[in-house]
Amino acid sequence: MRIAVCPGSFDPVTNGHLDIIARASKMFDKVIVAVLHNSSKNSLFTLEERVEMLRINCEGIGNVEVDSFSGLLIDFLKLKDAHVIIKGLRAVSDFEYEMQMALMNRKLDADIETVFMMTSSKYSYLSSSLVKEVARHKGCIHGLVPNMVEEELKKRFNI
Amino acid sequence: MRIAVCPGSFDPVTNGHLDIIARASKMFDKVIVAVLHNSSKNSLFTLEERVEMLRINCEGIGNVEVDSFSGLLIDFLKLKDAHVIIKGLRAVSDFEYEMQMALMNRKLDADIETVFMMTSSKYSYLSSSLVKEVARHKGCIHGLVPNMVEEELKKRFNI
Amino acid sequence: MRIAVCPGSFDPVTNGHLDIIARASKMFDKVIVAVLHNSSKNSLFTLEERVEMLRINCEGIGNVEVDSFSGLLIDFLKLKDAHVIIKGLRAVSDFEYEMQMALMNRKLDADIETVFMMTSSKYSYLSSSLVKEVARHKGCIHGLVPNMVEEELKKRFNI
Amino acid sequence: MRIAVCPGSFDPVTNGHLDIIARASKMFDKVIVAVLHNSSKNSLFTLEERVEMLRINCEGIGNVEVDSFSGLLIDFLKLKDAHVIIKGLRAVSDFEYEMQMALMNRKLDADIETVFMMTSSKYSYLSSSLVKEVARHKGCIHGLVPNMVEEELKKRFNI
Amino acid sequence: MRIAVCPGSFDPVTNGHLDIIARASKMFDKVIVAVLHNSSKNSLFTLEERVEMLRINCEGIGNVEVDSFSGLLIDFLKLKDAHVIIKGLRAVSDFEYEMQMALMNRKLDADIETVFMMTSSKYSYLSSSLVKEVARHKGCIHGLVPNMVEEELKKRFNI
Amino acid sequence: MRIAVCPGSFDPVTNGHLDIIARASKMFDKVIVAVLHNSSKNSLFTLEERVEMLRINCEGIGNVEVDSFSGLLIDFLKLKDAHVIIKGLRAVSDFEYEMQMALMNRKLDADIETVFMMTSSKYSYLSSSLVKEVARHKGCIHGLVPNMVEEELKKRFNI
Repeated sequence: MRIAVCPGSFDPVTNGHLDIIARASKMFDKVIVAVLHNSSKNSLFTLEERVEMLRINCEGIGNVEVDSFSGLLIDFLKLKDAHVIIKGLRAVSDFEYEMQMALMNRKLDADIETVFMMTSSKYSYLSSSLVKEVARHKGCIHGLVPNMVEEELKKRFNI
Repeated sequence: MRIAVCPGSFDPVTNGHLDIIARASKMFDKVIVAVLHNSSKNSLFTLEERVEMLRINCEGIGNVEVDSFSGLLIDFLKLKDAHVIIKGLRAVSDFEYEMQMALMNRKLDADIETVFMMTSSKYSYLSSSLVKEVARHKGCIHGLVPNMVEEELKKRFNI
Repeated sequence: MRIAVCPGSFDPVTNGHLDIIARASKMFDKVIVAVLHNSSKNSLFTLEERVEMLRINCEGIGNVEVDSFSGLLIDFLKLKDAHVIIKGLRAVSDFEYEMQMALMNRKLDADIETVFMMTSSKYSYLSSSLVKEVARHKGCIHGLVPNMVEEELKKRFNI
Repeated sequence: MRIAVCPGSFDPVTNGHLDIIARASKMFDKVIVAVLHNSSKNSLFTLEERVEMLRINCEGIGNVEVDSFSGLLIDFLKLKDAHVIIKGLRAVSDFEYEMQMALMNRKLDADIETVFMMTSSKYSYLSSSLVKEVARHKGCIHGLVPNMVEEELKKRFNI
Repeated sequence: MRIAVCPGSFDPVTNGHLDIIARASKMFDKVIVAVLHNSSKNSLFTLEERVEMLRINCEGIGNVEVDSFSGLLIDFLKLKDAHVIIKGLRAVSDFEYEMQMALMNRKLDADIETVFMMTSSKYSYLSSSLVKEVARHKGCIHGLVPNMVEEELKKRFNI
Repeated sequence: MRIAVCPGSFDPVTNGHLDIIARASKMFDKVIVAVLHNSSKNSLFTLEERVEMLRINCEGIGNVEVDSFSGLLIDFLKLKDAHVIIKGLRAVSDFEYEMQMALMNRKLDADIETVFMMTSSKYSYLSSSLVKEVARHKGCIHGLVPNMVEEELKKRFNI
């Protein structure tokens, strides 16, 4: 069984993330969406909330699991017997940082491969932080995130 | 009347900013320089000081106004009946971030267009933060900012 | 009256080109689409055919004219009393080449400004040469070019 | 069965290509290396020679097949019942061109996904054309291509 | 005597840094490795520790000196009668930031030249911050930093 | 004695080339400008003419020699007992191609180092091919090339 891991902060999950997860789910036997527990970075939603929002929105895709991790990503892959890391790409600077991470991960574990997939061009400008910025100023985020995430963001920012 | 908005932090205005503002003023009936009131980011100069420095240095250009805004840029444009956002470009990483912002702004309001203009090549290395860094260490910033801004920076850093 | 020139080979015009032309037409009093007569480069369509396809597809936009030029672009601008060059951007390598051209044109005539506008993200992968490549191999180009251009391409490649 | 296609000119195959093919073979049930029959581009080796060199060098990898194609890549994928295109990446300009191709291929067939994999950093400077250029001037290409390809190149350039 | 300065935070020195320092030492009569005393940025190792680790690891190279500086880099160069700044490059975004700094430094002192050298491709993914991140999570950093630096990092993170 | 080689087509030499040559001449004991004899590429000026134009314009710089080469650049360096290749940089795409060449040259001869220097920002848009394009259409190239090269270009294009 080929297992791939799709890591990220998902604070919160966007339609761009879901687009990549759905594409990846067709290519591998199992895709594990792995939410990073990053203690040093301030997140808007707690780890539990981020995992929950992903779970609800990935329910329809049979071979997708949602989990969380802290520490090194490659340790999480070993634990899950996974050998592939999936990264969605939007832009060149994305690519360079991801390339650096991919080479480091390959150094740390030669059996692990990173593959890059392209976000749908209609989500090419989308990021969690930009969505939060727009929501904070009461801009319309409809269509950028799942409906239930839109509701959660509105609650947070008292809209 | 075609109105364009040129947004930024302008902390402080540089000769590169003024170069773009002057170029834009020839292309549109009115150019509104919009200083971002960003409460979370530490600025060296207050919003009032940044606006004032811009006003003094744009005085010679008849169709330029200086104003400030907080919140979403597109809301400011609606308020001012403006339909064009002007961004100066220096480098590729500038461009990618700005492209992301431009696509998001277009999503938020389809009537608003972002246009990119090139800074004069002699200012291609210039940014407010780099100017402040040089001034802080008592390096010469002559020719990088207007004279009165140079004086203000010297005062701040006790030079 | 503010006149802008939108230059290119347009061999043939795509929906990405028309997207930029329509956006530009809202920003300037007149937009002149200028088809390059490039004797050294092999084009699929003749200069006359390229101009004609543009004319038919720009008919609905009142302030757009279609013309052709050879030689230096800035000489064409002077002839037409235009001061702005409009370039659509898709990618970083586009941007760098265009930046080089923009600086050279500014050197040749300091009164001329180049502005960059972003193609709709749904056309971000589109180019005339890619469209021709797909059509040559009988791939579906529907939605990438105007219908009449699609018909012309099919005729050329005996589809 | 998940089938992926790894397309290219392979004129000739390099150790960088073989690195990507080997990595891909671990991720999919079958990898079809697809040599492009490009009538317009001058190749050093004939289509048959390029296919043969790949076959010999992929012999050790059980789930790799070598084939050739002309026309649209997506038509070849349909014929082979494959749904994934694999592209090796070295640099940013690679990435942008490949991104454009990937989006066009997705438009032509929504069921087809392009995934990008990173070449080993030790091959990051390697390309078939650069290898040919070095061999032509009798430079040492040992370690850049398989030994039998090295021999063939030496024969061609009378070394 | 041609003196070059190789500036950086070196928190801590990596094998990529040492690769660049060794390459530079062959090109100039003296290379001064200049450790930045940056009071605002949190460093893992103190200035003294960073200098010491560099000194021990550069001992074998006769014409390399290790020193520290605060303030403007060009003032340090003047003090040392040096005219060349050496920067190692890995990626495009590196390059753009460094290009901006190089042009600013040239503006501040026209006699000073910045030269860029390429890190060995085997260190293309290496940075001090990434090494610290891996070490913090108890990942293997062997081969990425000198052995004594590896020991220091393990001590810091209680491995 | 430290000898550096500055290779190129120089068809013809521009003020940007001379800027880099002058900067390099201060850093090395001898700089050899090496004009590529490229039989396959059509050049406007013959090898002899290109060498001659460089010689005349480098006369004032004592430690600069002009020569020509064909074949591999590293073989030319060995012949001249040189260990450094100097490349001027303008843009990102420049950088990527040059990085590829630099790594290949390092593979071919580990003793040879490539260093990158930045063109003056006022020449950041300049290239021989763009200068020829402008001259061909009778545009003003004053200030872009040395006066005698300007005269030669005018003669060629009957201006």
